[in-house]
Amino acid sequence: MFKEDMANIAKKVSWSSRGDDRGERAPLLNGAEDGKHSNRQFSGGGMFHVGSRSTVDLEEEITPEEDIVKSRLKEIPHNEKLLSLKYEGFRCLEIRRWVICGLIGFLTGLIACLIDIAVEELAGYKYSAVKQNIEKFTEFGGLSISLILWAALNSAFVMVGAIAVAFFEPIAAGSGIPQIKCYLNGVKIPCVVRLKTLAIKVFGVICSVAGGLAVGKEGPMIHSGAVVAAGVSQGRSTSLKKDFKIFEYFRRDTEKRDFVSAGAAAGVSAAFGAPVGGVLFSLEEGASFWNQMLTWRIFFASMISTFTLNFFLSIYHGKPGELSSPGLINFGRFDSDTVQYNLYEIPLFIIMGALGGMLGALFNVINYWLTIFRIRYIHRPCLQVMEAMLVAAVTATVAFAMIYFSNDCQPLGQDSTEEYPLQLFCADGEYNSMATAFFNTPERSVRSLFHNPPGSYNPLTLGVFTLVYFVLAVWTYGLTVSAGVFIPSLLIGAAWGRLFGILLSTITSSQSIWADPGKYALIGAAAQLGGIVRMTLSLTVIMVEATGNVTYGFPIMLVLMTAKIVGDYFIEGLYDIHIKLQSVPFLHWDAPPTSHWLTAREVMSSPVTCFNRVERVGRIVDVLSNTSTNHNGFPVVAHTTENEEPGKICGLILRSQLIVLLKHKVFVERASSRLSQRRLQLKDFRDAYPRFPPIQSIHVSQDERECMMDLNEFMNPTPYTVPQETSLPRVFKLFRALGLRHLVVVDDENRVVGLVTRKDLARYHLGKDGLEELQLAQT
Amino acid sequence: MFKEDMANIAKKVSWSSRGDDRGERAPLLNGAEDGKHSNRQFSGGGMFHVGSRSTVDLEEEITPEEDIVKSRLKEIPHNEKLLSLKYEGFRCLEIRRWVICGLIGFLTGLIACLIDIAVEELAGYKYSAVKQNIEKFTEFGGLSISLILWAALNSAFVMVGAIAVAFFEPIAAGSGIPQIKCYLNGVKIPCVVRLKTLAIKVFGVICSVAGGLAVGKEGPMIHSGAVVAAGVSQGRSTSLKKDFKIFEYFRRDTEKRDFVSAGAAAGVSAAFGAPVGGVLFSLEEGASFWNQMLTWRIFFASMISTFTLNFFLSIYHGKPGELSSPGLINFGRFDSDTVQYNLYEIPLFIIMGALGGMLGALFNVINYWLTIFRIRYIHRPCLQVMEAMLVAAVTATVAFAMIYFSNDCQPLGQDSTEEYPLQLFCADGEYNSMATAFFNTPERSVRSLFHNPPGSYNPLTLGVFTLVYFVLAVWTYGLTVSAGVFIPSLLIGAAWGRLFGILLSTITSSQSIWADPGKYALIGAAAQLGGIVRMTLSLTVIMVEATGNVTYGFPIMLVLMTAKIVGDYFIEGLYDIHIKLQSVPFLHWDAPPTSHWLTAREVMSSPVTCFNRVERVGRIVDVLSNTSTNHNGFPVVAHTTENEEPGKICGLILRSQLIVLLKHKVFVERASSRLSQRRLQLKDFRDAYPRFPPIQSIHVSQDERECMMDLNEFMNPTPYTVPQETSLPRVFKLFRALGLRHLVVVDDENRVVGLVTRKDLARYHLGKDGLEELQLAQT
Repeated sequence: MFKEDMANIAKKVSWSSRGDDRGERAPLLNGAEDGKHSNRQFSGGGMFHVGSRSTVDLEEEITPEEDIVKSRLKEIPHNEKLLSLKYEGFRCLEIRRWVICGLIGFLTGLIACLIDIAVEELAGYKYSAVKQNIEKFTEFGGLSISLILWAALNSAFVMVGAIAVAFFEPIAAGSGIPQIKCYLNGVKIPCVVRLKTLAIKVFGVICSVAGGLAVGKEGPMIHSGAVVAAGVSQGRSTSLKKDFKIFEYFRRDTEKRDFVSAGAAAGVSAAFGAPVGGVLFSLEEGASFWNQMLTWRIFFASMISTFTLNFFLSIYHGKPGELSSPGLINFGRFDSDTVQYNLYEIPLFIIMGALGGMLGALFNVINYWLTIFRIRYIHRPCLQVMEAMLVAAVTATVAFAMIYFSNDCQPLGQDSTEEYPLQLFCADGEYNSMATAFFNTPERSVRSLFHNPPGSYNPLTLGVFTLVYFVLAVWTYGLTVSAGVFIPSLLIGAAWGRLFGILLSTITSSQSIWADPGKYALIGAAAQLGGIVRMTLSLTVIMVEATGNVTYGFPIMLVLMTAKIVGDYFIEGLYDIHIKLQSVPFLHWDAPPTSHWLTAREVMSSPVTCFNRVERVGRIVDVLSNTSTNHNGFPVVAHTTENEEPGKICGLILRSQLIVLLKHKVFVERASSRLSQRRLQLKDFRDAYPRFPPIQSIHVSQDERECMMDLNEFMNPTPYTVPQETSLPRVFKLFRALGLRHLVVVDDENRVVGLVTRKDLARYHLGKDGLEELQLAQT
Repeated sequence: MFKEDMANIAKKVSWSSRGDDRGERAPLLNGAEDGKHSNRQFSGGGMFHVGSRSTVDLEEEITPEEDIVKSRLKEIPHNEKLLSLKYEGFRCLEIRRWVICGLIGFLTGLIACLIDIAVEELAGYKYSAVKQNIEKFTEFGGLSISLILWAALNSAFVMVGAIAVAFFEPIAAGSGIPQIKCYLNGVKIPCVVRLKTLAIKVFGVICSVAGGLAVGKEGPMIHSGAVVAAGVSQGRSTSLKKDFKIFEYFRRDTEKRDFVSAGAAAGVSAAFGAPVGGVLFSLEEGASFWNQMLTWRIFFASMISTFTLNFFLSIYHGKPGELSSPGLINFGRFDSDTVQYNLYEIPLFIIMGALGGMLGALFNVINYWLTIFRIRYIHRPCLQVMEAMLVAAVTATVAFAMIYFSNDCQPLGQDSTEEYPLQLFCADGEYNSMATAFFNTPERSVRSLFHNPPGSYNPLTLGVFTLVYFVLAVWTYGLTVSAGVFIPSLLIGAAWGRLFGILLSTITSSQSIWADPGKYALIGAAAQLGGIVRMTLSLTVIMVEATGNVTYGFPIMLVLMTAKIVGDYFIEGLYDIHIKLQSVPFLHWDAPPTSHWLTAREVMSSPVTCFNRVERVGRIVDVLSNTSTNHNGFPVVAHTTENEEPGKICGLILRSQLIVLLKHKVFVERASSRLSQRRLQLKDFRDAYPRFPPIQSIHVSQDERECMMDLNEFMNPTPYTVPQETSLPRVFKLFRALGLRHLVVVDDENRVVGLVTRKDLARYHLGKDGLEELQLAQT
C-alpha cells in the first residue's frame, strides 16, 4: 500500500527547500549503480537514491583529526601545538564538555521559560478578551460576533506563525522530533540545527499554541534544545558570522552529535520536567554506543534545564525559590494516598492499551494520507499559510459550536482549577463543562481531566469532545506551523480514558472501587500517546516523572507495550511515517532478522572510485566535481591504473578533507615553498567545519591540475574493512556500533572491491512477505 | 602504592577455590609473550597473565551458530530444521525472550520477598528476646547477661551463614556486585551464576542481616537476580542435572549475558523499588551496545520484579493489593509539601558531597588494606568463619556499650516509628535514642534518621554513632559472609548528614530555614554512598526512586558528582578495588586518553597458533592440550607450514567448537560413514554449553590422530580483522562496541600476524604519570 505511494510522491518530498541551491542534489543513477541493482534477485530491486551528500552521512568513521595528527606526527612532531595533547589536555577538554552541557541545559531551560511565559500571557489575553465578549453578547444575543472575534484572533496568531515558518524556515515546521531522530541517527538534514531555525521555531510555537490550535509546545522544545546544543558546542554561529573562538576542539561531527543528544535530552527535560526521561529519550533515539561519561553529562544538562526552568518560573509565578514545580506541562500532583490500583484492574488497563493502539493507528493512517495529499497539492507557502489559518478558524468555530450546543452545566466549586469558567447559558454559580475542555490551553484541559473530581464531566460531553478533538488533531499535525503532537494525543486519550472510567463505574455501579476516573484518564492518555508515537521506555519514564509518582509505572508500561504491539500491527509510529516519507537512509536498531543470507558483496556499491597515495590534482578535482560519484569517502589504494584490477587498500580520505587540501593548495610541487608559508593545521579543518565549500567554489588552474597531492599525510591509514562474504547483520552491527558512514569491502588480497554506505543498509527492511528492498526516493 | 602490593598478593588471590580443579589454570608465560613484552618501552612492562580461559572471555565475537548454519547451508539446506528459521521463528524467539524476562522478574521478586520476610521474622525474634532480657535485667542489674545473650545470638546467626559461604561456595561472599560487574563486562568467573551460589547467597544474607552485622541485604539481591536470570534463560540447571528442554536457542554467551543484565536490573529494582534505576544500573555496568528492545525487556523484568515483591509483601503485611509500597529498602515517603530546598543551600550540598567523597575514600583505603591482610593471613575457611563470628560479637558488644553509656533519652511519641524502643535507664515514657540507631535493622535506622522530627537525636549521639559504625562497616565488608555495603554506607552518611544539619541550624540559629535535618541526612547518605561505590547516573535514579520524589534529584546528582570527583582523586571505588585485586581483564569504557600512540602491533600477542582449513586431528589435540597456548579462538589460514611465513586468514574457530567436533569425531575420513549416522547439529553445540568438556577428557586414538578435520564448515568465515597500524583506541572501541573477545591482526596481505585479546587491552591504564602497564596477576 505505502510502497507505491512513496515511489510516486517521493519526487516532491523535501524537508527543506534549501537543499537545492547547494548544487549537490544531482541524480545518482549511474551505470555502476544500475549494474549493481540488476544483479539482485529481489522483486522490489530498483531505485534507491539519496538526495545528495548534504542530506546524509553525519557521523564520522573516525575522528579524522586524530588520525591526521597521528600520521603527520611522524614527520613534524614539534610543530603542532595540539599534538602534545597530554593528559592535562584531556582533562581540560573533559571540563569544557561539562561546561558546555551546563550551558546547554541553562539556555534550553531559559527558552522553555520564554515559551511558557509568552504562551501564558498571549493565551491569557486572548481568552479574557473572548470571555468578556461572550459574556457581553450572551445577554444581548449576537454571539456570532464573539465567534468571529475568537476565530479571527486564532487565525491571526496562526497566520503570523505560519508565515514565519513557511516563508523563512520550512524545516521549523512540525514538532521537529523526526528531524532530531534523523540527526541523532546520523542523517544530516540541512539547516536543522541552525540558529535561524531555532528563532522561527520558538516564535512559531508561541503563535500556534496561542492561536488555539490542537497542538502542544513540548515537541518543539526537543528541537530547540538540540539547536542550542549545536550552537553552544561549536562556540560560533555561522548564521550570525560570529566566532567566539572557543570550544574549537568540538568542531566535528561526533562531538557535535553528542552535544545535540544532550540538547534533546535537556529539551525533553524542560518540556515534561523529566530529566531521566530526557536522558532515556536521547539514548532511545540517538545512542548506539553507550558511554557512561556521556550519559552522565546528558543527565547533567537535563537536570540543569529542569532546574533553570523551575527557578525562573517560580519567580514568574511569584514564589521565588520554590523549586519543586515540574516542567512545561504539569500533570498536577497525584496524591500518594489516593494513588492506588488493584490487581484486577490490570486486564482493563491492557484493554485500554489495545484501544489506544487502534486509535493511534487510525490517527497515523489518516495523517499519512493527509500528508501525502499535502505533499501533492499544498506545497506553495501561501497555500500552506492559508490552510493553517483555515484550521485555526475551524478549530475556533467547532469549539464554539460545541460549547454553544452543549448544555452540560456544572456547579462552580470553591476549589475549581478553571482559569476561565464560562457561564454562558448556565445558571449562576455554574459553568459550562464543555468549555473547560475547549476554552483553555490544552495543557490545562489535560490537567482538569486528570484531577477534576468524579462527576465533573458528562459522558456525552467527553464522547463528543474526543471525536471532535481527534479530527482536529489529525488535521493539525503536518500543518506548516511549529507544533507538537504530544499534548493533543494526551488530551484525546485523557478524554476517552475518563469516559472509559465513568462507563466502568456506571456498569459496575460500585462507586467505591472505580471511584477515580482521573486514573483512567491518565491510563487513556498514555495509551493514546503510545499508540501514536510508539515510544517505549522513555515515554514510560516521562509519564512517571510528569505525574511525580512511581506507583503507576507498572500500569503505564503495560499500556504502552500493548499500544505499541497493537499499533505496530497496523502501521508504523507517526514519526517513523514522516521519516519514511522523506526517504532518508535511517538505520534501525538491528538488521532485519532474515537478512543473514545477504553478504557485503551483494549490498555494496561497486566499482568504487579510489585515489592513489600520491594523486594528480586534476583527477581529484574531476572526481569531486563529478556528480555521479558523490560519495563522502574515497579509499586510497597502493596502485591503481584505471579500468584495471583494483589496488590494495592503504587508507581512506574524506571529501571534506580533500576540499580543504585543495583550498590550501597542499601540493607536492609546492612543498618547498610551503615551508616558508604557514603549514596546514588542524585548525584549518575545523574552521571549515561544518560548511565545507563546494568543489565548484575552489579554483584550480590548468597548471595546478598537473600537480600532485600526497594523501599519505592526511588519510586515515587504518579504515575499517570487511571481506566480501561478511553477512549483512555483521555489517549492520559495525555501522550501528561504531557509527560508521562508509565501510570498505575488500577481497582476500586486501584489494578494494566495494564500499558500503548507510543507504545501502537502510534499503532493506522486513515486510510482511520477508525481506523487502525499500522503494526510496530519487531526488 | 597499590601496584607493588597487587603484584605481591596476586598469587594468593582467587575468587573461587574451584578454578583449580579444572586443570586449566596453567601459567601462560611462554616465549611469545615474553618476546612481546620486551619490545615495549613502558617502564612498568612485565607480567600480565590471566588465570585461564575459564576465567576470561565471556562474550562471543559472533553468535557462532549463525555462521555455522550459514556455511553449512550451502551444502545441506534441507537437512537442518533450524535453517529454515524464518520470520515467524524470529517472532517466536522474541516472545520467548519476553516470557523469560517476565519469569526472571517474578522469581527475583519472590526471592526478595523471601529474604525480607525471613530477615524480618528472625530479627524480630532476636530483638524481642534481647529486649525482654534487657528489660528484665535493667531492674535487677546484671545486664552483662543480656550482653552475652545478644552477642551469642548474633554470633550464632553469623556462624551459620559464614560456614555456608566459606565451606560450600566462597563466591557467594560479599555483595556479589563486583562479580556481576565482571560478568557483564565479559569476564567469566567460575560458578558465579550457579544455582548453588544462589542458595548459599540467599541463606547467607538472611543469616548475616539477622546476625546484626553492619550489612545490607540489597547488594546480594543483584547477584541473586543475575543467577535467576542465568538459570531461567537456559531452561536447565547443570547443578541439578535437570534439563527442561526449553529455551535451547538461548544457550550461548551473548543471549545469556543479555538475560543476566535483566536479572541484575530486576535485583536492583526489587532491592530499592527502583525499576528505572535497575535498568540504568545494568546499562552502566554491562551494556556496551544499546539496543532498544533489550532495554525495554530489561525494564519489563524490573517492573515485574518490583510488582511481585510489592504484591507479596502487601499480603504479608496484611494489606493485600496495596501495591504502592516500594522495594526492600523503604526510605519512607518524603512528603511533597515539605520537600523543598533553596538556591543558597546548593553550596552546602556540594560541601557535603566533598566530605562524602573524602570519607568514602578513607573507607576504601582502610578496606583495601584490610582485604590485603585477609588475603595474606585469613584464607582458611575456619579462620574466616571465626573472624565473622568475632565481628558479630564485637558489633553486639559495641552497640551494647554505646547504648549503655549513652544517656540520650527522648520522649516516646504517639507516632513513633520505633519497633523496639528500649527504655533502659530512661524515665517512663522515654526511650534511649542511641538504641534506635543500634537496636534495629539498619534499614529502619536509616528511615528513622531521614524522617524523625527535628530534635530526635542528640548531636553527640550521632557523632559517636557515625564513628563507631564507620569502623564496624569497614571491618565487616570483605568478611566471608553474604552482605551488601549499600545500607551501612547510607546509614553512616545519614548519621553525619543529620549531624551536619543539626549543626547548621545551631550555627545559624534560625530554626525555620534549616528546619529539616532529615533532608541533610538524605544528602549525607547519598554523599557517603557515592563516595564509596562511585556510581553515578544509576545511583541518582535509585535514590530518587527510593525516596519517591523527584525534587531532590538535582541536589543528589550534584552531591554524587562531587563525591565521585573528590573520591577518585584519592582511590578508586570499592567495587573497582575488589575487581582489581582479582586481576581480571576488566575493560573500562574508553581506552586511556593518551594511548593513541600505541598500535595493534604493539599490543597484540604474536606469533599466533593457526590452523589449516583442513587440519590434522593430532595437531588440533596437541594445540588444545598445550597449556601455553590456551587461547579461546584460533585463526584458520589458507596455508601454513609451521615456522614459515604466516598464511592468509580464512576464518576463526573457537576452542569450544573444536572440542565438540573432536568429541563427535567429525573427521573427513569418517564422512562417508557419518552420512548414515546422525549429522552434527546445532543442538550438539548448545547441549555442550556452557561447560564444554576439557580436552583431556576426550580420547583420541593414535589412528584418529592421523585423520583430518575439515574446519571450513564450522569456522566463522568472516572474523573481524584490523591492520597492524590500527591505534589502540580504535581496537578498544571495536572490543567494547562489538563485544569481541579476540581480534585478528593482519598485515596488508591479509596474513595473520597477531591476535589481540581482552587481556592485551585491559593491561593499559592511565596512571598519574601517563600511560601505565598494569601489574596483573600470575595465577
